[in-house]
Amino acid sequence: MNYSVTASVQVLERTPVVLKALLEGIDDSWVMNDEGPETFSPYDVIGHLIHGEKTDWVPRAKIILEQGLSKPFEPYDRFAQYEESKGKSVVQLLQEFERVRKQNVQWLQSLNLTNEDLEKKGMHPSLGEVSLKNLLSTWVVHDLTHIAQITRVMAKQYKEEMGPWPSFFRILNF
Amino acid sequence: MNYSVTASVQVLERTPVVLKALLEGIDDSWVMNDEGPETFSPYDVIGHLIHGEKTDWVPRAKIILEQGLSKPFEPYDRFAQYEESKGKSVVQLLQEFERVRKQNVQWLQSLNLTNEDLEKKGMHPSLGEVSLKNLLSTWVVHDLTHIAQITRVMAKQYKEEMGPWPSFFRILNF
Repeated sequence: MNYSVTASVQVLERTPVVLKALLEGIDDSWVMNDEGPETFSPYDVIGHLIHGEKTDWVPRAKIILEQGLSKPFEPYDRFAQYEESKGKSVVQLLQEFERVRKQNVQWLQSLNLTNEDLEKKGMHPSLGEVSLKNLLSTWVVHDLTHIAQITRVMAKQYKEEMGPWPSFFRILNF
Repeated sequence: MNYSVTASVQVLERTPVVLKALLEGIDDSWVMNDEGPETFSPYDVIGHLIHGEKTDWVPRAKIILEQGLSKPFEPYDRFAQYEESKGKSVVQLLQEFERVRKQNVQWLQSLNLTNEDLEKKGMHPSLGEVSLKNLLSTWVVHDLTHIAQITRVMAKQYKEEMGPWPSFFRILNF
């Protein structure tokens, strides 16, 4: 697929709804367990997605559009949510994610980006030169792969209960 | 986590809602594209989940409860949906999945399974002896890993648009 704002917004606006459908009201053991030391729980992932909305995708898109290659992006803090989520319930985080995502989608749509805009370049601190299109596609992929991660983490909680069946599920060894 | 009917039903009843939130009304290109030859699209996965509701989880649980080890399970057809989904829209499949899942969850809850029931054994055609608990945990894991698969398949559609970013996403090479 070629990147399009329309198709990408279809995913971006669904992610908070999908996460609410999956996690709201479910037992804490599904939400708070992780895959082992130094891995994320579903709870951690929601915090990570919120932090991304505030400090990553939109701020970096603004740098590309306003300053181009002259100002490298700030490095992204993948662990910021450990502090920022403290004391918040999963429902609070889901609502916060929905709210910040809605603002960011509205901003994206308001830009009325042209193909020329999508080719504009920015400087990633470790990947080097990237285009706005690269950044905006990655925003979508980041959502989708974190939904995949959350459901994989949840699935692993039952691995011991499955008897011989884990051998049929390659994903449980990821 | 130890298997419990309550916690497992929390996932089983959410899966159709999650898939509707993710896929209803979205462009066909997100739903019909796959990961390459002989892989499933999200559309194929929904058909596979429906087939599982009809021929796998509940029929096998009934065999364990009614006939035990004396009657091995029927082998499962992982490709039945190619025929069964023919001519159906994704919305029709999502509705059908919701309907058959609801019936199956009600049936599971109506059993009022004891711990003793959960240890009852059946004979899997290739894995050998399995317990009802193994089967019922795997039902949940099967849902979750197929949500992970669907979102991974969708994510891969933008891989070419991401420039250098795929190197940060191990899951895109799964």
